[in-house]
Amino acid sequence: MEEHEFKAAMADNAARVEDYLDRLLPLHDNPEARVIEAMRYATLGGGKRVRPFLVTQSARLFAVSEDSALRAAAAVEMVHCYSLVHDDLPAMDDDDLRRGRPTCHKAFDEATAILAGDALLTRAFEVMADPSIHPDPRIRADLVVALARASGAEGMVGGQMLDLVAEKADLTVPEITRLQRMKTGALIAVSCEAGAILGKASKMQHTALLAYAHDLGLAFQIIDDLLDVEGDAAEVGKATGKDADAGKATFVSLLGAERARSQAAMLVEQAGQHLDIFAEKADPLKRLARFVFERRA
Amino acid sequence: MEEHEFKAAMADNAARVEDYLDRLLPLHDNPEARVIEAMRYATLGGGKRVRPFLVTQSARLFAVSEDSALRAAAAVEMVHCYSLVHDDLPAMDDDDLRRGRPTCHKAFDEATAILAGDALLTRAFEVMADPSIHPDPRIRADLVVALARASGAEGMVGGQMLDLVAEKADLTVPEITRLQRMKTGALIAVSCEAGAILGKASKMQHTALLAYAHDLGLAFQIIDDLLDVEGDAAEVGKATGKDADAGKATFVSLLGAERARSQAAMLVEQAGQHLDIFAEKADPLKRLARFVFERRA
Repeated sequence: MEEHEFKAAMADNAARVEDYLDRLLPLHDNPEARVIEAMRYATLGGGKRVRPFLVTQSARLFAVSEDSALRAAAAVEMVHCYSLVHDDLPAMDDDDLRRGRPTCHKAFDEATAILAGDALLTRAFEVMADPSIHPDPRIRADLVVALARASGAEGMVGGQMLDLVAEKADLTVPEITRLQRMKTGALIAVSCEAGAILGKASKMQHTALLAYAHDLGLAFQIIDDLLDVEGDAAEVGKATGKDADAGKATFVSLLGAERARSQAAMLVEQAGQHLDIFAEKADPLKRLARFVFERRA
Repeated sequence: MEEHEFKAAMADNAARVEDYLDRLLPLHDNPEARVIEAMRYATLGGGKRVRPFLVTQSARLFAVSEDSALRAAAAVEMVHCYSLVHDDLPAMDDDDLRRGRPTCHKAFDEATAILAGDALLTRAFEVMADPSIHPDPRIRADLVVALARASGAEGMVGGQMLDLVAEKADLTVPEITRLQRMKTGALIAVSCEAGAILGKASKMQHTALLAYAHDLGLAFQIIDDLLDVEGDAAEVGKATGKDADAGKATFVSLLGAERARSQAAMLVEQAGQHLDIFAEKADPLKRLARFVFERRA
């Protein structure tokens, strides 16, 4: 798969997901629609849509309808965006800038941002459980369970808590790896799992996708740490240098930039190998892993 | 049903729900367990458990297993408790006291309270979708959809947003009624709906339970407004007089205490009548409506 083909596929998928998010978060005229405006602000018009790409490309490995895949992709993206809204709050990471725009609580206010995050999380589960996503109710219930496990106290939220309570400077590589697997890895993994659930994947296929997702997620985090050190705020679209300022141990502070980068390269290589059982159908997912490694923002 | 029998049934149900909440929110030794401690703090050891009682009593109208009903009851209570944790935050209602104890962000901190709320909401959907709640996946998916609709931007969260943006002093009775139906009524309604979904209720039974819940929810709110004016903070377990201090229109400020009380009495009477199709099996639910009317805290 050529780079221009891959980039076109990413852009095409992002546009389709944007369209689904737009339709799944309809605005109305009632005064409480302020919360919907904030939900739309937090989800529409930005981001590389890496997780939705994982959902739709995992789904394409099986005979999943495009509509099912895009609904699941939009639901996962809602969870990702809710987590950004809450993480950016003053009581959490206190960020003013996100994707080059004011964060949700800056554009609206804190109360609205808290509620918009809550409502996005809720809507994600509704989308996963609604009959329109798939006629088989067992698949719908399984999607909800998988998304909840990835997002909750044993997954993403637990990872965010761990990030807040950990003695930042004293973390070891295994501890940072566990933190990352919970905080960002779990949602990346469930993006691939959603495709497998919708596609009634075999146990072996399911396991291969999860192994790919775990390696990809870790590579993603290492590159994120590198960009935090080396990146330019305008290009990355959020504040950089925050981890070092906070005296936080990262893959880069522990391994050094060189070893961190070669570790990421190894993970990307390994991620692709897990998908060999899908032959060339998995090319976009393999290409995505390389994209993660090469990204500058 | 005698008053002492009803009170014993409420207490017995509260103890069973407490046990399920305890088991559904297991603590562990990892450092991120702080968020689970906060989830447990926010849910265990308090409250009249009105919503769980509605779930289990609605379920008892049909042939629903006690285990199914108590899981659904615990899930609804998790959503109720998450909403209290987030509503109490400084950026929202800024309350220090809840059920006579420090609010979650006072006992822990704001970041932990935000995350604990998020994780409780997430866990509630996981409990509803998990196979252990019911073998029929259609029922599980339906429970998730009903809970999401009641809790999200078109329900509870929308009501909270409306409460924040409404020109408080200028609200009319129909506007306050709509606000209440979203902010507190939707979760009361889905408590009854959960029993109907688990019990595969007929359309007519479903409608009767919803009509009961709507009248009960409105009566509940009117009594809440009366207690805010007339109640004692120590007895009610949270700050009182807040609505008047905030110049907020309430059922009491618009109708006066006398008319508000007789309106609540009428609603309680009417709520019970909707349940006549269930004959004496619905006695606990009818008695609950009277309890709501008579409560002093």
